[in-house]
Parts: sequence; structure tokens; C-alpha cells
Amino acid sequence: MDSKGRLANFSAGPAMVYEEVLHKCQLDLMNFEGKGLSVMEMSHRGASFTKIIEEAEQDLRDLLRIPETYEVLFMQGGATAQFAAVPYNLGWRHDPSDVAYAPRADFLTTGSWSKKAVAEAKKVGVEANVLATGDNKSIPSDVSAFDYGDAETRAQSAYLHLCANETIQGVEFKGLGSLGSVVGKGGQLQGAPIVADMSSNFCSKPVNVEDYGVIYAGAQKNVGPAGVTIVIVRKDLLGSPKAGTPTMLDWTVMSENKSLYNTPPCFSIYVCGLVFKHLLSLGGLDKVEQINKAKCGLLYDCIKQSQGYYDCPVDPKCRSAMNVPFTIPGHEDLEKVFVQEAEAAGLINLKGHRSVGGMRASIYNAMPMQGVEKLVAFMKDFQAKH
Amino acid sequence: MDSKGRLANFSAGPAMVYEEVLHKCQLDLMNFEGKGLSVMEMSHRGASFTKIIEEAEQDLRDLLRIPETYEVLFMQGGATAQFAAVPYNLGWRHDPSDVAYAPRADFLTTGSWSKKAVAEAKKVGVEANVLATGDNKSIPSDVSAFDYGDAETRAQSAYLHLCANETIQGVEFKGLGSLGSVVGKGGQLQGAPIVADMSSNFCSKPVNVEDYGVIYAGAQKNVGPAGVTIVIVRKDLLGSPKAGTPTMLDWTVMSENKSLYNTPPCFSIYVCGLVFKHLLSLGGLDKVEQINKAKCGLLYDCIKQSQGYYDCPVDPKCRSAMNVPFTIPGHEDLEKVFVQEAEAAGLINLKGHRSVGGMRASIYNAMPMQGVEKLVAFMKDFQAKH
Repeated sequence: MDSKGRLANFSAGPAMVYEEVLHKCQLDLMNFEGKGLSVMEMSHRGASFTKIIEEAEQDLRDLLRIPETYEVLFMQGGATAQFAAVPYNLGWRHDPSDVAYAPRADFLTTGSWSKKAVAEAKKVGVEANVLATGDNKSIPSDVSAFDYGDAETRAQSAYLHLCANETIQGVEFKGLGSLGSVVGKGGQLQGAPIVADMSSNFCSKPVNVEDYGVIYAGAQKNVGPAGVTIVIVRKDLLGSPKAGTPTMLDWTVMSENKSLYNTPPCFSIYVCGLVFKHLLSLGGLDKVEQINKAKCGLLYDCIKQSQGYYDCPVDPKCRSAMNVPFTIPGHEDLEKVFVQEAEAAGLINLKGHRSVGGMRASIYNAMPMQGVEKLVAFMKDFQAKH
Repeated sequence: MDSKGRLANFSAGPAMVYEEVLHKCQLDLMNFEGKGLSVMEMSHRGASFTKIIEEAEQDLRDLLRIPETYEVLFMQGGATAQFAAVPYNLGWRHDPSDVAYAPRADFLTTGSWSKKAVAEAKKVGVEANVLATGDNKSIPSDVSAFDYGDAETRAQSAYLHLCANETIQGVEFKGLGSLGSVVGKGGQLQGAPIVADMSSNFCSKPVNVEDYGVIYAGAQKNVGPAGVTIVIVRKDLLGSPKAGTPTMLDWTVMSENKSLYNTPPCFSIYVCGLVFKHLLSLGGLDKVEQINKAKCGLLYDCIKQSQGYYDCPVDPKCRSAMNVPFTIPGHEDLEKVFVQEAEAAGLINLKGHRSVGGMRASIYNAMPMQGVEKLVAFMKDFQAKH
């Protein structure tokens, strides 16, 4: 794709990292900024790494305009670990020692990942009130459209969990809709904070953090390498984890120790920090969203203009800006050929998820416009040829 | 320390990485072996990363001669996560659904880390039978010297947990002693498997894996960057995690999914793989142990020959080959000067742990002999000067 032979990589994650970030990593790999050692070799309690993690946090705060009433944590284990951490930390706030109590939480299940969150919450002992199960092709474009029941029912919920963008199905909430104004500052839904798994659209667009109680995201889609999970949690939600919560899932312990209770994934946090600086240098998340809209617009337009040759199974009102699934209806035999010929043309990882089939183009932040343009040109050629 | 300006880094972890490994990382950072992408950007289910993780496992199996009756897992969260995973996975093997049952396990507490393991096991619901609390300066050189009680008492224990090397106190078990033959193949102590936290001496010397039920280690001391934890577990111990075990702590789930239940810390696993290949190229762990013995021998000899100017508080029979704590008795004011002047001489991170004081030289696998020689020369100069 460029002079260094790098390809257009449409992987759903881990995914492309900005070339500028990789270049800086490479330059400093053996000797970080003349300090005489690699970031991989730094004591996590030393001055150099302290500066790295503090700058990463501050740059993320600047990007997302995170208020001081929220903590930023760097954790491990991906969204899967947070699927357990959420109920552990939010389910027993009335009495952490009452482990026999079964709290209830509301869940919007709009795809594979939000369903996994339900299963894990049940494991921890939370009764799951599943408000809606999407058909994987259409969800309301905004979160407010779901039926949350009456005020009394809502008040019994420990939290409302949702997945902001479903990587596998390619459906994305466009916003909280009227729920944003209902919840107001503090992310409360009649007492129940909104918890959002933003793993696959984190930092792809501006978000009003105060609409949420908790936002979490594995880094490996938009902001860095696999192995670090960012958790943004409103401070008043801390302090009451369920008795027996494993330390590594305990937001309160992580917060009290500034994410340094034990050795964090230092190198991965460093790369995230470089990505945050790069996003700021691009002009922040307003600008990033503009680029991402242009990229996915190009691809969805190409599908539309193919006159049915290509099809995106997802309802236009909730199509993801990050993950674009598409098929060749009536010619499923051609889909394998498509993936192979695309790969030969330097467009890799376009095969759809095994549970869905077809193709999927994941076009996160670091996928350049020229990568999408190349894919669109290939799609037109392929259609003409087959 | 060398032409690239790299320093002798005595950090307790994250710690030095072999220059050859860092060089390979740097070379391939933007484009791994001509594949057109960085390892950070690879799908964890693609062919390239599959090869990386499979080779890493096989090379580790070769290094430690791990039998096929053991699984090798790449997990996240460091030893702290395993402090919880051990009781979750081993405590309820008689009946995983009987969550009200309080299993008992034996613990050897020989320093800070083994004590943390006790606290976390209690959180999970395991009754801790602490067999011995060391005074941080002397422990039996072999594990068999502790009093394990009569056969009936032993049979009630779900497992025996120990920390093979205490990073902070600088005490290390030299072996299992007669317990090795008592436990025999399979790592059973009258029915209770031995579980060893080897975070700070993993792959520093050969180990008879079959003496243990479980071995685990955070990578960031001897084998790679922070953010990946290696777990070696005997297969018959899998299959009975406590009901409600968080998925990310569940060895059975990790084993069934070959460490790919969710996205693993790919880049960190890749670096570990490079370290394993490097250790094999050095001649394997027999050779590595020989080098490590020579390195720590030089340092302990220097302390001994200082005629009391320097002192190592640890009983010679259990001194660690990895972490060498030392003081300047009667002249504690000079310790701060020592650390400062050493840093100015390119010998960094020699300050002792805040809970212990004095100095500590951590000399893991990747600390070259010349780094230790430079430290010894500095110590002699410092003594002459002050």
C-alpha cells in the first residue's frame, strides 16, 4: 500500500495502527528518547513511565473531554474481563457484603458481544433483564427507543448495559436519543447508570461522557495494541465492590492505585498514549469522526450503487461506521473468490466473521481513506469481472 | 553501556530484554517479515499470529521440557490475577457447584508476594493454612523442610502454594528437596498439587515441571514485556472451576480455546516467543542457569569481600540468583548517595524496594555479565571513595 509494503488491513481487531505511531515506536524501541532503555524495560514506578502513563491519561481526557468527576483506568483482560467487572463493581452498591443478594440489571442485546456481557453478569450473580434482542440486522438508531418499563421497575435496576457498536453484526447506536436528556448529567437512568462497551468505536467520534456511568473499551480496534482495556468510571460509583471481587477486576483498587496496583501492560499503554497524541494532532475527535464518516460513506455508497450486486444486511439507520458487513446475494460462491482476489490485491482480512459469513471491512480510525478507496475500486472491478 | 547508549538496568521488573530480541522487534515493527503489517495489527485468528503463538508455546515446551500432560496458557493480569485464579480453579474440584463449601489450602509465606496470594485466596473463599511465615531473611533452602502435618491433614488441602523467588526480599527456594521425591510425578503432595508462582525466576534455570501441578509467571522479569502471564497446568486439574469463576480467570476456558477465547496480548506474546528462541539459541536453561549463577556469584562475592562494608541481609543458603538486596550497615546515609552515583555511572534502578530500603540489584536473564561486572567495579570504587 505504501513504499514500505504495508497492506490495507481490514481486520476486525487487532487492527491497523497509525503509521506515524508505529514509526515512533520503532525509532524508540531500543532506547526511548535517549533514556538508555526500551519502554518494555522500564520500571512501572520510575519517572519515565510515570510521565508516559500520566500523559496518556491527560491526552485521553482532552480528547473525550472527560470531567474530573470520572476516573480513567488502564486495565487488562479486554471487554471480557469488564463483562465480569461491571456486575462486581456496580451490583452490590447498597451492601457489598450481602453476597447472597441478587441484583438486577438491564441489558440491551444487539449482537454477539452484548449477549456475552449478559452471560458473564449472570455468572457473577446479577439477574439479567434483557430489554431487547435485536435480529442482528436492525436496532433502533438511538438507545432511548427501547422500552425501559415504568419508573418503579427502572429504579430496581443496578445499571443499564449496552454495546455501542457490535463488531460482528456491524450495528451501531447513533446516540442515546432522548435518553440523553432523561439521564442528564451523571449518566443515571432513574438511578441506574448507563454502562457502555465501546471497544469497537472508542475514540472514533466525540461522546458526551457525562451521559454514562461507565465507558470501557479494549484498545485493539481504535487506540492501540491488544492487552490494555480503558475504563472510564464516574467516581461516585466506586467504593462498593461485591465482597470477594478479584483484585484485578476491582475498579476501586485500580483507582486508588492509579492503575499501578501491580505491573500494568506498560508498552501497550505507551502505544495508546502515542495514538492519543496523534488523534489530538489530527484535530481531535470532531475531525476524526468527519474522516470516519467519509470513509464508511464511500463504502456504503459503493454497495448501494452496485444495484444489488453487493448487499449490506444492516438497516441503514444503524449501520456501523467501523464495521461494514456485505454479501454478494445469490452468488455466495463468489464471496470466497472475492476474499482471495482482494488479498492478492493487497486488501487483507476481508472475510466475514465465521458466525455471519460474507465479507466484512473493518475501517477503524487508522485505516486511511486511500485504503477504503482502493477497496471500493476493487469492488467495482470485481463486479464488472464476475 | 554500549554503542547505542543503553544502560545497565537493574529494575526488579519490568526488566531488561535481550538486545537481540529488541533488535528483531525493531526491525519488524512496521512490517513483520514482509507480511505487510505489524504484529500489533495482526488478527489473533490469522495464519501469521497462529504461527507466532504456536511456536512460542512449542519453544517454551522445549526449554522447560513440558510434558504433553500439561497445558501452556497465555493469560493476562500478572501473578495478581493468578492469585485468584488458583483458588477458583483448584478449590472446588470435588463439586464446583457447592459454592458455600470452604476448601482449605496450604501456603508457604516467604515474602511479600506469597502473602498477597494468601489474601486473594481468602477473598475467593479458600481457608488458608499458612505453614510458615519467613522473617524475610531466612527460609529453608528447600521446600521439603516445612512441616506439612500428618497425612490426614495433608489430604484435606486443595493445593500447596508457594512463591519460588521473592523479588522484594531476595529469597529463593533452591529446590523441592525431599518433597520432590515425596510428590513424585504429578506434583501431588498427598493429593494436594504444588502450585508455584515463578514470576521472578521463570526460565532462569531448569525446573522439573512434573513436580508441580501448576506453574505460573508474569513475563516481565525474565521472558518478555509486562502484560502476559504464562500458566503451565496439569491437564487433569482442569475441568472443575468454581461455579461463577470469571471467564478471564478460568483455566479450563482458556485451555479449550488455546488462549484465544478473546483477543490475547498478541505483541507481548510475540516478544516472549522471541525470548524463548533466544534462550534456546544460548543453549537452553542449563546454560542460562550457569550464566545466572556466575552473575550472582560475582555480586555476592563482592559483598562478602567488602569486609562488612556491604551487607546482604539474606541467609546465604536461600539467596536469590535474581534479586540481590544489599545495604551499607551503619552508613545508611550513604545508600542514597550510592544510588545517585550509580545512576550517574549508567547503573540504574538500584534503589531497594520501599518496604525494605537499601539497594537491590535485579539481575534477570537479560542482564549481561558485563552489567554485573560494571556494578561490582563501581561498588569497589564507592567503598574506596566513601
